Amino acid sequence: MTDLVTFGESMLRLAAPDGDRLQTADSLALHVGGAESNVAAAGAHLGVDTAWLSKLPDSPLGRRVATDVRSHGVDPAVAWSDDGRVGTYYLEDGGEPRGTNVVYDREGAAVRTATADELAVERVRDADVFYVSGITPALSGTLAETTADLLAVARDADTRTVLDVNYRAKLWSPEQARETLTQLLPGVDVLVVARRDAETLFDLTGDPTKVATEFRNEFDHDTVVVTRGEHGALALHEGSVHEQESFPTETHDAVGTGDAFVGGFLARRLRDGSVPESLEWAAATAALKRTIAGDVAVVTPEEVRAVVADEGDGISR
Amino acid sequence: MTDLVTFGESMLRLAAPDGDRLQTADSLALHVGGAESNVAAAGAHLGVDTAWLSKLPDSPLGRRVATDVRSHGVDPAVAWSDDGRVGTYYLEDGGEPRGTNVVYDREGAAVRTATADELAVERVRDADVFYVSGITPALSGTLAETTADLLAVARDADTRTVLDVNYRAKLWSPEQARETLTQLLPGVDVLVVARRDAETLFDLTGDPTKVATEFRNEFDHDTVVVTRGEHGALALHEGSVHEQESFPTETHDAVGTGDAFVGGFLARRLRDGSVPESLEWAAATAALKRTIAGDVAVVTPEEVRAVVADEGDGISR
Amino acid sequence: MTDLVTFGESMLRLAAPDGDRLQTADSLALHVGGAESNVAAAGAHLGVDTAWLSKLPDSPLGRRVATDVRSHGVDPAVAWSDDGRVGTYYLEDGGEPRGTNVVYDREGAAVRTATADELAVERVRDADVFYVSGITPALSGTLAETTADLLAVARDADTRTVLDVNYRAKLWSPEQARETLTQLLPGVDVLVVARRDAETLFDLTGDPTKVATEFRNEFDHDTVVVTRGEHGALALHEGSVHEQESFPTETHDAVGTGDAFVGGFLARRLRDGSVPESLEWAAATAALKRTIAGDVAVVTPEEVRAVVADEGDGISR
Amino acid sequence: MTDLVTFGESMLRLAAPDGDRLQTADSLALHVGGAESNVAAAGAHLGVDTAWLSKLPDSPLGRRVATDVRSHGVDPAVAWSDDGRVGTYYLEDGGEPRGTNVVYDREGAAVRTATADELAVERVRDADVFYVSGITPALSGTLAETTADLLAVARDADTRTVLDVNYRAKLWSPEQARETLTQLLPGVDVLVVARRDAETLFDLTGDPTKVATEFRNEFDHDTVVVTRGEHGALALHEGSVHEQESFPTETHDAVGTGDAFVGGFLARRLRDGSVPESLEWAAATAALKRTIAGDVAVVTPEEVRAVVADEGDGISR
Amino acid sequence: MTDLVTFGESMLRLAAPDGDRLQTADSLALHVGGAESNVAAAGAHLGVDTAWLSKLPDSPLGRRVATDVRSHGVDPAVAWSDDGRVGTYYLEDGGEPRGTNVVYDREGAAVRTATADELAVERVRDADVFYVSGITPALSGTLAETTADLLAVARDADTRTVLDVNYRAKLWSPEQARETLTQLLPGVDVLVVARRDAETLFDLTGDPTKVATEFRNEFDHDTVVVTRGEHGALALHEGSVHEQESFPTETHDAVGTGDAFVGGFLARRLRDGSVPESLEWAAATAALKRTIAGDVAVVTPEEVRAVVADEGDGISR
Amino acid sequence: MTDLVTFGESMLRLAAPDGDRLQTADSLALHVGGAESNVAAAGAHLGVDTAWLSKLPDSPLGRRVATDVRSHGVDPAVAWSDDGRVGTYYLEDGGEPRGTNVVYDREGAAVRTATADELAVERVRDADVFYVSGITPALSGTLAETTADLLAVARDADTRTVLDVNYRAKLWSPEQARETLTQLLPGVDVLVVARRDAETLFDLTGDPTKVATEFRNEFDHDTVVVTRGEHGALALHEGSVHEQESFPTETHDAVGTGDAFVGGFLARRLRDGSVPESLEWAAATAALKRTIAGDVAVVTPEEVRAVVADEGDGISR
Repeated sequence: MTDLVTFGESMLRLAAPDGDRLQTADSLALHVGGAESNVAAAGAHLGVDTAWLSKLPDSPLGRRVATDVRSHGVDPAVAWSDDGRVGTYYLEDGGEPRGTNVVYDREGAAVRTATADELAVERVRDADVFYVSGITPALSGTLAETTADLLAVARDADTRTVLDVNYRAKLWSPEQARETLTQLLPGVDVLVVARRDAETLFDLTGDPTKVATEFRNEFDHDTVVVTRGEHGALALHEGSVHEQESFPTETHDAVGTGDAFVGGFLARRLRDGSVPESLEWAAATAALKRTIAGDVAVVTPEEVRAVVADEGDGISR
Repeated sequence: MTDLVTFGESMLRLAAPDGDRLQTADSLALHVGGAESNVAAAGAHLGVDTAWLSKLPDSPLGRRVATDVRSHGVDPAVAWSDDGRVGTYYLEDGGEPRGTNVVYDREGAAVRTATADELAVERVRDADVFYVSGITPALSGTLAETTADLLAVARDADTRTVLDVNYRAKLWSPEQARETLTQLLPGVDVLVVARRDAETLFDLTGDPTKVATEFRNEFDHDTVVVTRGEHGALALHEGSVHEQESFPTETHDAVGTGDAFVGGFLARRLRDGSVPESLEWAAATAALKRTIAGDVAVVTPEEVRAVVADEGDGISR
Repeated sequence: MTDLVTFGESMLRLAAPDGDRLQTADSLALHVGGAESNVAAAGAHLGVDTAWLSKLPDSPLGRRVATDVRSHGVDPAVAWSDDGRVGTYYLEDGGEPRGTNVVYDREGAAVRTATADELAVERVRDADVFYVSGITPALSGTLAETTADLLAVARDADTRTVLDVNYRAKLWSPEQARETLTQLLPGVDVLVVARRDAETLFDLTGDPTKVATEFRNEFDHDTVVVTRGEHGALALHEGSVHEQESFPTETHDAVGTGDAFVGGFLARRLRDGSVPESLEWAAATAALKRTIAGDVAVVTPEEVRAVVADEGDGISR
Repeated sequence: MTDLVTFGESMLRLAAPDGDRLQTADSLALHVGGAESNVAAAGAHLGVDTAWLSKLPDSPLGRRVATDVRSHGVDPAVAWSDDGRVGTYYLEDGGEPRGTNVVYDREGAAVRTATADELAVERVRDADVFYVSGITPALSGTLAETTADLLAVARDADTRTVLDVNYRAKLWSPEQARETLTQLLPGVDVLVVARRDAETLFDLTGDPTKVATEFRNEFDHDTVVVTRGEHGALALHEGSVHEQESFPTETHDAVGTGDAFVGGFLARRLRDGSVPESLEWAAATAALKRTIAGDVAVVTPEEVRAVVADEGDGISR
Repeated sequence: MTDLVTFGESMLRLAAPDGDRLQTADSLALHVGGAESNVAAAGAHLGVDTAWLSKLPDSPLGRRVATDVRSHGVDPAVAWSDDGRVGTYYLEDGGEPRGTNVVYDREGAAVRTATADELAVERVRDADVFYVSGITPALSGTLAETTADLLAVARDADTRTVLDVNYRAKLWSPEQARETLTQLLPGVDVLVVARRDAETLFDLTGDPTKVATEFRNEFDHDTVVVTRGEHGALALHEGSVHEQESFPTETHDAVGTGDAFVGGFLARRLRDGSVPESLEWAAATAALKRTIAGDVAVVTPEEVRAVVADEGDGISR
Repeated sequence: MTDLVTFGESMLRLAAPDGDRLQTADSLALHVGGAESNVAAAGAHLGVDTAWLSKLPDSPLGRRVATDVRSHGVDPAVAWSDDGRVGTYYLEDGGEPRGTNVVYDREGAAVRTATADELAVERVRDADVFYVSGITPALSGTLAETTADLLAVARDADTRTVLDVNYRAKLWSPEQARETLTQLLPGVDVLVVARRDAETLFDLTGDPTKVATEFRNEFDHDTVVVTRGEHGALALHEGSVHEQESFPTETHDAVGTGDAFVGGFLARRLRDGSVPESLEWAAATAALKRTIAGDVAVVTPEEVRAVVADEGDGISR
């Protein structure tokens, strides 16, 4: 029995060295990342038993992705394919005003043709929690269907479901996203949504509590978590509202922060943490992630606890 | 007026560090390469005026390719596109018995939709020599047509034409290659063909002179160059046969050797070198290339002359 | 049910860059290696289900070892400890006449206190094959006992046992090694022994067949494999002698070759390969390993098959 | 016809790794930089047609400089020489209080003997704008004369002239600089001067508008741009004063900021931008440059526009 | 005659790359550091004649340590040993909230068995100043005795003695530290103590002047320096109190800051600087150190003077 | 009293990465090298007490050179100067047929103005052996005089003198070299000369014994060593001829081989080795050097002994 199963695409991430531009860089750092494997990896590092469902070509690049996911302690339940490629993304991280730029090169990825038939659906059935982000249904019509199928499998098996909206403007329009997600959201147990996405996709503005409430009212979620980046997060759960500030952090690599937040939240919930406790873990895991290169929050439960307890200043020696 | 114009795809080349596998590598060296830009670059380094026609997406990755081509002194005459990606290939170079493995990830490249209409056809008209490899028509039906169109443009403008068969088994079958090339070859002035490809595609075996003669008889080439890797090369030109041995070399990076050969050959021919003189330059440029990382022969005419003259042993200080 | 379970120490391997000396190097490449995890990793890459038993301190360095082992697809069944360190070794690899030098810094490693009580003994019971090298009992008196205990567990559970003598002069004297191994060898199903070790420890010289026969007669092994480095190997199995030549290889990193040999042999045996077939796989896996940086044979079954079939020359593209 | 032609020295820049000192560093990052090629390169990246005049030794190091300049899209109109070296500078960039330290090693550079006779003077004649910095005449008496000659050529050909004072205390004294520049400034169309240099060389203090006015009155410049680093810039043009604030930026590499400013200014002016519009581009290009390693502003017009429009926060994906 | 002699352990420092975790890093930067060699090295860089006493194994790793110490201009007076290892520590430096983590792997170091008999005691006798930190007696009972012996030697020879408390919680408890140090402190001429350590070990709180006075009263030190990190330092000397603020600094590497402080202080004192002058040098050397990778303050007297004089802003060129 | 004192220039050596060209490399490895400091460093590593006399600018680059020399255990007796630069050389090491290319950039080095007056001449007087190569007098007329002066000082003080001809065609012509060296050679105790240089400069051909004899007859050397690269060396000493073969070696970096040879020879001679014993050490040190990156033979006496004894094959563990 697995604690947490996720489903989605993981990509090769090819990043220009610090201060370099993709236009001139002569070497690239290689990491692997994707919302769903990132969440699973954060969970695994925090002690829960996780698996990640996906489809990859049987090639050195496909194996590269699986190797990386496995190294974080996640079981890669991969449908190996003869067709399709491994999605890649190129990353260039400059200080302001240049900012972080992501160049997607993910068309034609094998995962875009993944159907429930070829995936390890029984892993979803046997899990406590099934997680998927809004990126997965954005990738193809097939994946939108497969996402719906797996959510249905989960519901039938009393596996709790979690969805993070995670809107990506380079993948689909707000209208497309709203239409697809509106079909997926009913019955999702835990919704995670950035306040900005709530406004962009659903025109929900104003007080985050109000935003959370509207989602709850519309889709009957058990828990709604509204995230606001450095301004903290808020959860609406069984009629109570819990607020959580962000922890101060010096950012080395911002990519994957949201996934670390969800991974920290679910890891604590799966170990019987209350919603406010889990929000604290979420914020602490996210803060730690920002200090770490790559998409994944490589952290220990002790480190998360130390942040929550506000320890760990200076040099530990 | 440009001496040499070429047309084809150039890719990002992402290579695992020495001894590493793509499955585990954490950084990749980034070079840019493609048969036609490699030939143009070798030519430019050897002092001829060159341009390279292609189509690239208007993105950091597309600009990366153009930046690299330009750095070698080649004028990148690029049709910038809103669609399509930049082809990439992953390289893993192991000693024997592992060997060199190339993982192509070039589906969907913008260049595959390039038509003569959108390319700088006037550069072909104004050139002394137009070169294309057999890789270009292998990439798409559109490119097969565009290749034919550009060869026709060249012939109409009295631009001499050069084609290197360059068969790639990961791109098309021998049958597909033979059918397409048979339509392109008539009227090509200079044919370059590996003896192995002559056999694989055209069932031509036996003595290389015989192979060259059969091509000349069939397609009426002015010059036929048959290459045999470390076993040297041979040219049939105006009824004479010229043989050239390979120069001994310690190989650091074998990719691009054939393109360096052609670039050296054409650079010398364009400066009124005889066919045997040009074969010598071809072999020397190829030998130097094998000592250099990346696809391109970054060499000077003096270095090529020194190899031809068999100097340059030991430490020059 | 696991196919292959191994038990031993894995260390951090800190290697000076190519051409540098430890005395002056300013950065070190970090790999993880140990005979038993190397064998398990080669097995996992070749498709068998593997686990590695050990004991590590609960520290970033201990987790580093487990992360690496897991990345190769091996399940790290680790007893986490509050005491002891992670063994390290420093590697300096120079061409001749400098040679490869290993500086061990492995005293005080947590694994040296590992007893059967704290290890996942049930994994041995549930396995098809249990493997241990002669390095493990060399590390401490406790480990010599634990090795004996686990071999006894295996025998009781009808798990086949494999021991590779793997004599390390920096760990113990020939006399100590002989005395300890003589107690462990009776009942071992498959013995792997370098001919040089057979001579150093047991004064067995002469024809390798004779050496194998003497071991078989003395300890009643089912199979005896005598290895002779570049001169090939030989197996005595059910009265038949099978010889296997080494495959030619260009060496990038020689460390771990013997473990790759054993991993390849066992992977094939576990999939019903005959002894001669398995010897071929062993030799091919070893040859491939030598082209790869790090202790582990990161190879696919297809690559091993290609070496056995003598394919894979030149550039595959 | 070229939009922008510049003339000056470019050097090899050898930088210690982040946090390292030149006294102990074991590797150095190699870039190429010089005020005039930096300005040309920024212009080329922003879409104007540029050339750079200089003199270099015909050596691998001279070719290194030309290769780099060309890669940015600038045409290197180089007088190749048998004598003289390539100037180098060593860079050590520490946080405060260590600061950035430049160690010049540029004595004896080939460019110091460059006369108008050996340079591609016709490129100046055919250009819209000719730019030179005050560094060039500081390098030698010959270069002071050549600078005067080229400015005269430009004036005769109705090529507009631009001079950036760019005082370098390690090259000459304020008195020497004032004397030489006073002879060059009359007739310069556009003067760019740091307020600090105006004070150091010309004793001009007080309000920047007053400083600009005094230059205009003295030398009859069409436009005077006074720069004040992070405090913004100001232009006096046709009797109007235009002020421009600096854009906030996180500095990765401060070298070349002033050149990026000028390059951005000229690129916009050459495309019919008004003076205030061009100041905005100048400030935005300078802000982007500070995020980029190396001397050159590798930026696109779109990126400059986004900074001007204050977009581009967060992660673009 | 040596100005400054120190005694203690120096370790290999193995640091994960910026942003990486030890759990996943694939290469480590190698520096050498230890409080006493750091102090000697800072002194040597600032122009005083220094030696460092220690004991190291005669191995490539032992030689690595001596090579590094020597490169800073310190004479390594090493007792070479056949037993014992070189202590190592692993460093992971993350921004907040992750912080800097040091993983010690220093058990069993050869130095722990060093007795006065095997050390170059005459160097202490011939020195102006003998320095040791509180880390040395924390490492073993033998070293506590040896420290006492060397302090006695110094006193007998009229060599002035300096001790920096430097409490390390990962080495011993406050009680153990207090007990040992209380025996060593009487007769120490100059005591350096962090205010935090004064509280942790000796329960001394309140005003730093009061803390300094209590040490002076208790142990009769000639000078007591109380350090307070970024809040500056204070010295009590011959009845006068001297305060010194910290200089603002951008931290690249915080390890070794305290040792740089002491090194700067002693270098100035040894050249007849007054106590307040020496405090200024101490603070400036410490500020510079924080900008430099590695444990050692690689700085020149001129750089220290520039910080004291508050020069050195911007780019020096 | 120092065993061995040398005098000459040491340069920054900036090397392109393996396989890269200087024309395109983006980083360079930094080593320090020069014949005389290389010889001293090899000597120091082999246990003799050494010093190196030179003149350097008081700059980070000058300190870089001294730091490096000191790290090898050589005492840098440097005359610090306000004028002149640090010589540099750029290195590009390609396999055949590209070969190793050295680009000197050493004009204007501070050392070229060094006179005996400003050097630590007393170190020569107090030494057992004074060594200089033929490169030093080639660098300037002043240095030719200074070399003569120091040789005279040595003779007056009964310090034995050693000169290695070391002809560099990029520094002077054979005629210039012959004329200068002919004045220096009389009275030199030990002459080392490559057979090739003997022919190029002195027209001495034929049997090496004959070459040695002619030098002995002409200049009355006590010992003449004729080196022949991979073909070994020969010494003529007190009427006897001693021949020494080269040891087989896999070359990683050939620069400095000759200096390692001399360093090994002198180290053994200084410890009462006979001439044939010293030749063996010379050849072994040279063979080891070729496996090591950088100019210096970082080796131990034990390693040299192992090569002489033909041990050290395989992996030592």
